[in-house]
Amino acid sequence: MKIIVDTLGADSHPAEIVKGGVEAARRYDIEIVFSGESDSIREALKEEGERQGSRFSILSASQVIAMEESPVQAVRSKRDSSLVKGLLALHAREADGFVSPGNTGAVVAGSIFALGGIVGIPRPGIAVSFPSLIGEDILVIDVGATVDCHPNHLAGFALMGAIYCQTIKGVAEPTVGLLSIGGEKHKGNRLVSRTYELLKKRPFKFAGNVEPHCIVTERPVDIVVCDGFVGNILLKSYEGGAAATVGIFHQFIKENFTKIGTIGIQAAFTSVRAKMDYRSYGGASLLGVNGVVVIAHGRSDAEAITAAINVARLAVQNDLTAQISNNSGEVADE
Amino acid sequence: MKIIVDTLGADSHPAEIVKGGVEAARRYDIEIVFSGESDSIREALKEEGERQGSRFSILSASQVIAMEESPVQAVRSKRDSSLVKGLLALHAREADGFVSPGNTGAVVAGSIFALGGIVGIPRPGIAVSFPSLIGEDILVIDVGATVDCHPNHLAGFALMGAIYCQTIKGVAEPTVGLLSIGGEKHKGNRLVSRTYELLKKRPFKFAGNVEPHCIVTERPVDIVVCDGFVGNILLKSYEGGAAATVGIFHQFIKENFTKIGTIGIQAAFTSVRAKMDYRSYGGASLLGVNGVVVIAHGRSDAEAITAAINVARLAVQNDLTAQISNNSGEVADE
Repeated sequence: MKIIVDTLGADSHPAEIVKGGVEAARRYDIEIVFSGESDSIREALKEEGERQGSRFSILSASQVIAMEESPVQAVRSKRDSSLVKGLLALHAREADGFVSPGNTGAVVAGSIFALGGIVGIPRPGIAVSFPSLIGEDILVIDVGATVDCHPNHLAGFALMGAIYCQTIKGVAEPTVGLLSIGGEKHKGNRLVSRTYELLKKRPFKFAGNVEPHCIVTERPVDIVVCDGFVGNILLKSYEGGAAATVGIFHQFIKENFTKIGTIGIQAAFTSVRAKMDYRSYGGASLLGVNGVVVIAHGRSDAEAITAAINVARLAVQNDLTAQISNNSGEVADE
Repeated sequence: MKIIVDTLGADSHPAEIVKGGVEAARRYDIEIVFSGESDSIREALKEEGERQGSRFSILSASQVIAMEESPVQAVRSKRDSSLVKGLLALHAREADGFVSPGNTGAVVAGSIFALGGIVGIPRPGIAVSFPSLIGEDILVIDVGATVDCHPNHLAGFALMGAIYCQTIKGVAEPTVGLLSIGGEKHKGNRLVSRTYELLKKRPFKFAGNVEPHCIVTERPVDIVVCDGFVGNILLKSYEGGAAATVGIFHQFIKENFTKIGTIGIQAAFTSVRAKMDYRSYGGASLLGVNGVVVIAHGRSDAEAITAAINVARLAVQNDLTAQISNNSGEVADE
């Protein structure tokens, strides 16, 4: 198995990304193609005690798509970027999957451009594994690929989420919830109430509306479906709520505990971070395009990159794209 | 000053709500009208050492609008409910403000029905004070009144938020941010990018997009504007992120600390709750209707009711409705 890793355009340094790729190759016995600036990749490989060869190859690219660039425009104009070249190589079957910690919008636009969508899936969606306090992670889709949605787009996300849970997590009959602002059917906006009617007719278990505040603590369903704008707000608000809480704790402990107590409590903070930090999510899968694409956080360290590569590896190993493609007929006829 | 307090339809017991009303009357030297079931209100007053009279009067109502009822239908059919009767009494100027911990949608629908909107404000919005770690609270509008928005609805929220900050909080030149999923102008959905263009032309300081994760920790602006569906998701996701973090701490501490240490740490939890709990928000103001209406949390205890009444009191005292009405011309012409 061969995974392409984009080393440019993220907030993290290319050397840190290469380090994560080397670790993934060793841990999972796979091959890694680094797309980016050849010299710095070679140097980073050397730093890790490795060298360019069949296990670690380089896809040389002269351009970078930066975080703040407008996605569609950047993908159109920067054909020699590490991002576009990587996706084109994936399309040409020179590799099995693609991982990027770069500009999310550009990864989505580039994937649609280079790989194309899956017939029967109206729009792509990004699926992320949320931690839960009571057991397995909970899958949220979409967290940012499609920000203006119609009900059948959300029905497509639901189907892809269900297939993901079956294929990757081995959940036989996953339950789907629709993110809304009240548990009752009539509570939500126009998009939610129209989607509700659609999901009732689907071939998976639809559990109705779920509210955001109980997702992590109660894990009411296996999959939460929402439009990409709302899903991204959900993700970042959870981050904000966790950061605010840790901040208040910090303040209180600094004012009220002895030095020794403070050292003791640091372990508790570490425990929160391990659970609530994006690094533990691994990477987010872009579903609904013709190929395995995983988006890592822009500030990924080596460990987060290794985790994101593992998300791609599992998708390749379980033939996730084909699974979605073979079961997408249900949404096509809307 | 006279404030009507709705005692029915909330998750809290009417006696708890009466207790909060009595405390507010004593603390702020105002009159309270309790709408609801006469006998139980009289009994609750007695429990607090008070009696029916000019300071505490009763607006008798035979019907209850429950939490799970469909708002518009409930308001239409239950004219003798504590909620509708209270709002009609406010409209008839029998009181100066109205506070309800009941069905939020019904309070919104009932307010539009009984009081009418403000000319020049396209839609009402609920404004809530979010805690911040670095200074003053931050105002978020809308958190649930209007769930399907056009850009000029959001422009109306922005204007009302700015007037609220000037009138109630005494901020001379409040800054407005537009909630989105990226700081750059092009990041967001169609609604956000259209609203961005509108807000640029407004008579207040527009600071561009703000992302949800930094609202509490960095307080980038005085007012955050969003559609009511997204605002409610934001609010409940912050609650969820805080609850999850507290849950992880609890788990860790239970496993790693001695009994004594655990007791010590409880104070830290209390400190988090005091900051992140809805009770500290007081109540949420429904802006854009012809009258002072404050929505309290459905699980409000007496203290939360007292705080919500105080939010109404400040709006009445500063003539907020007239301030909005007199300055609404800016949005009318969209």
